[in-house]
Amino acid sequence: MVEPFAATGEFALIARYLQRVGAARSDVVLGVGDDAALLHPPADQQLVVAMDALVSGVHYPAETAAAAVGHKALAVNLSDLAAMAATPAWATLTLALPQADMAWVADFVRGFEALAQQHQVALVGGDTVRSAVPMVVVQLQGSVPPGQALRRSGAAVGDTIWVSGTLGDAGAALALWQVPSHTPPALTTADRHWLRQRLDCPTPQVALGVALRGLATAAIDISDGLVADLGHLLRASAVGATLQLAALPLSPALRRYGSDPVALALYSGDDYELCFTAPPTATAAIQQAAHAAGCGVTPIGVIESTAGLRLQSVSGVQHTPSTTAPGFDHFADRASR
Amino acid sequence: MVEPFAATGEFALIARYLQRVGAARSDVVLGVGDDAALLHPPADQQLVVAMDALVSGVHYPAETAAAAVGHKALAVNLSDLAAMAATPAWATLTLALPQADMAWVADFVRGFEALAQQHQVALVGGDTVRSAVPMVVVQLQGSVPPGQALRRSGAAVGDTIWVSGTLGDAGAALALWQVPSHTPPALTTADRHWLRQRLDCPTPQVALGVALRGLATAAIDISDGLVADLGHLLRASAVGATLQLAALPLSPALRRYGSDPVALALYSGDDYELCFTAPPTATAAIQQAAHAAGCGVTPIGVIESTAGLRLQSVSGVQHTPSTTAPGFDHFADRASR
Repeated sequence: MVEPFAATGEFALIARYLQRVGAARSDVVLGVGDDAALLHPPADQQLVVAMDALVSGVHYPAETAAAAVGHKALAVNLSDLAAMAATPAWATLTLALPQADMAWVADFVRGFEALAQQHQVALVGGDTVRSAVPMVVVQLQGSVPPGQALRRSGAAVGDTIWVSGTLGDAGAALALWQVPSHTPPALTTADRHWLRQRLDCPTPQVALGVALRGLATAAIDISDGLVADLGHLLRASAVGATLQLAALPLSPALRRYGSDPVALALYSGDDYELCFTAPPTATAAIQQAAHAAGCGVTPIGVIESTAGLRLQSVSGVQHTPSTTAPGFDHFADRASR
Repeated sequence: MVEPFAATGEFALIARYLQRVGAARSDVVLGVGDDAALLHPPADQQLVVAMDALVSGVHYPAETAAAAVGHKALAVNLSDLAAMAATPAWATLTLALPQADMAWVADFVRGFEALAQQHQVALVGGDTVRSAVPMVVVQLQGSVPPGQALRRSGAAVGDTIWVSGTLGDAGAALALWQVPSHTPPALTTADRHWLRQRLDCPTPQVALGVALRGLATAAIDISDGLVADLGHLLRASAVGATLQLAALPLSPALRRYGSDPVALALYSGDDYELCFTAPPTATAAIQQAAHAAGCGVTPIGVIESTAGLRLQSVSGVQHTPSTTAPGFDHFADRASR
């Protein structure tokens, strides 16, 4: 029910709290407060629909600040829409909590709200339920002009492979969280904080996604790690690729973190950057689009006809990606193996 | 992500299982398999959006058959759309499970699939995650011509109050499940089975909802119990009502169940019937619409200007509803009080 989230019981308190969250949009005919929301879809656009769940202890450390959970729950869905070149619009939210902890909810809403306002997303409905394990499910919708959505399947031989931002930061933060005694000598307190922010509060590349309409041939967001997600794109496009390891964009903090930053950039997830392809002729236009979107983009390789992914080191040696490296699954799954 | 649900790990098996579920619809441009789904919304219609979560042990007994969980997860959302007079179209699904139990998933999909095919609902995306507590979240969308959605707020003084089907059956099944030693002498084995079906596999009144466009003035689905849900409708419409207790539609099985069937009809939830209002002049048209939709409807009271809900017994005595009766919250919440 989209009604006041939970109609009765102590969870009704949370429900009331969630009635005025997110941006006010003129296309929301009826928001939270009835059996369902009523929306007026934009004319002549396609709808873009994503749904991503975060489970405490699986997708984020259980002690993560509630505001970060609120931010991340929306951010991971915004990232999916960014990878489709969509403009976000409406969210529905299911909040599953062990008890009606209003301080936690207020903090959660603060994080969700700030990102929702930034991207003009209205929260139009959802549900609040009791569950021993905290879990947040967001369904996010947006729109894109017909034929302009970026898919995974459009990469062509000769295309350049690009990534936004830097890679491996969230993975380093996760490793630092998992082994608190690990203190890389060069890593500053500011580095630690910055890396943790990259894990807890990822920045979805929504403006970049929209700017890539008509320029990129394929796109995916990096949630499971570059090798895993680029692998999805290559298979969907029925092509292969070679990556230049020396070209991978690494943050100064990750370089100071030290232990094999390239492996983290290749295999660790949760960065929520975009990986996309475009013909070499589009290079200048892409750099311009990224500049306008306020983010950096880096060419890291090339699409080839031979299936599979090859990694080329500085010395020119090629090898295939590890299949046992960390980053292929979320950390709880890794921990349980 | 709408991509193959879970891209990696053992949950990828479930993901593959969920790639071909539900009806094939021509308005699904891109379904499961990318970062998000692409949908072509119907021209000149409003979108209707509901999201309802079911937690094992809270919204259904933990030992409920997986097929029933699959059915119910979609049914409760179809019921929300029915209460808005909407035609359902697309669902997204988050499945949270302790482990990748493929037999359970196959059974779940069987229940979800049958109801999805019946209502022409396509599953276009979602997520599969690991969680110690099983939980199912469905977001369902449909459409309705502008201005024709039924809301809770349209009831007018003098309107007749109607309900579909029979009330209290799911509550009786829940009571029987909670106290297995309780064996009402008149209750047959067939009755027990029928009541349990009413709890596990509710029938969303989608056809009735659509048939009520232009006839009903307000509507809500009965998930928390007649008194609680009619209360929402009355408050949203700023009116009151008197119900005739003798008019409440009770199934033969509930009558044989025996112990205070009227209280179950008033206060127990999970029946997922519709409660709606309409002017007395619409009576014949409503009966015709219900007949065409294949369900029974019963007039049970009248909308009045005096706020609040009054219950009138056969002898003409009026009283106000209990505020401590069961049915105001889900059974786990009740059990914990």
